[in-house]
Amino acid sequence: MEFVSYLGVKYYIWQMEAAFDRDKHIYKSDAFEEIIKDTVRFFNGTPVHKLPPPVKFHGTGVYAIYYTGKSPYYEDLYEQNRLEFHQPIYVGKAVPRGWRQAKDAKLGSITFELYSRLREHGKSVNQAKNLAQEDFSCRFMILEDSANHLIGTVEAALIRYYKPIWNTRIDGFGNHDPGSGRYNQAKSEWDIIHPGRPWADKCVGQSSTIDKVEEKAAEYFALIKRINNAK
Amino acid sequence: MEFVSYLGVKYYIWQMEAAFDRDKHIYKSDAFEEIIKDTVRFFNGTPVHKLPPPVKFHGTGVYAIYYTGKSPYYEDLYEQNRLEFHQPIYVGKAVPRGWRQAKDAKLGSITFELYSRLREHGKSVNQAKNLAQEDFSCRFMILEDSANHLIGTVEAALIRYYKPIWNTRIDGFGNHDPGSGRYNQAKSEWDIIHPGRPWADKCVGQSSTIDKVEEKAAEYFALIKRINNAK
Repeated sequence: MEFVSYLGVKYYIWQMEAAFDRDKHIYKSDAFEEIIKDTVRFFNGTPVHKLPPPVKFHGTGVYAIYYTGKSPYYEDLYEQNRLEFHQPIYVGKAVPRGWRQAKDAKLGSITFELYSRLREHGKSVNQAKNLAQEDFSCRFMILEDSANHLIGTVEAALIRYYKPIWNTRIDGFGNHDPGSGRYNQAKSEWDIIHPGRPWADKCVGQSSTIDKVEEKAAEYFALIKRINNAK
Repeated sequence: MEFVSYLGVKYYIWQMEAAFDRDKHIYKSDAFEEIIKDTVRFFNGTPVHKLPPPVKFHGTGVYAIYYTGKSPYYEDLYEQNRLEFHQPIYVGKAVPRGWRQAKDAKLGSITFELYSRLREHGKSVNQAKNLAQEDFSCRFMILEDSANHLIGTVEAALIRYYKPIWNTRIDGFGNHDPGSGRYNQAKSEWDIIHPGRPWADKCVGQSSTIDKVEEKAAEYFALIKRINNAK
């Protein structure tokens, strides 16, 4: 119990800890499940373009990258995408600048995060010595205004559903140049099996070997096959 | 144009890049806006407990931390929370382990991420020399099963709405011990004005000064006042 004085009046406050009841804290929403399914359906119906798309466009959202080339690492992907863009090699998101800290977000300002991210990915595959940029395509979904809040959700749902190899087994495709003074970090698995990004060669930290990364890729496709056979 | 052979039949594929139309990529959902509002309303109606809550509970979700003490840094917060838990000092989330990479998530396993995070925060404020743990309370919302996907969204919505000072102006409260070999990083702003976490003192990187951080805190409350007066 405590007395507080407010605008000249004394209030009497009963500060007792509420009895703990976990159920009172659980939020349930069937409507939300429907929205997730709807976004994924919408996503899978968006037009596919080359990586990057031919026109610079503004906005933030979610994208998938498809590989239809013949790299021996991704033979199974080639099979899966033979007749339609079905299995992405990578799924990612582009959120509004400053979104995470809720800082400096200028409402209504036009920014190009999604396009920039796709262009950056195009540059990465172009720099990789054993990949060809023309073998990559992309699909993307623009989420703006309050639908901004769906970006992380949709990205997570797509990753969980498709388990793209560059998201779930071979890390590092989405990395940025760490910048001077930070090259003591390890070269990523992606940069080990796809050498070519100039900044990745500067990373001198202890990292994996090509044999191990190739093994992870093979294990991934074996796992996906078991999952598909069990369906 | 390209020929592919599949199950002995030759298919003829017309590979033409679709004409670019930004509108075809935009997803809109009024239903989703309603869900966000509903989660925030639900959140604001959950019981408030001391930090950490008195019972260990399982699950993941979103939480807010309230400060009702008399630190001169947060006088305005004391005023705002005089009669109800209104303005949080920090909002955070606890997601399922391995969620980000969609790895190793064992469905149905019972884990204690949300409680652990709150307990860790309790320890941080307890270690701070100029804060007292009993001045902190918390509110939290458990999001499980497919509502897991809402965690990031609800956290972002709460941060945007409340702009808690430890999220938007004074960084570092939610940091973890960087661990041996990584103490070359800078001490966070939070650790500068709230010294006491033993691992923070080991961080030797160039960091801000107490004067600068105090100035940021003062600026924050001046800004919040202008926003509230304009309402």
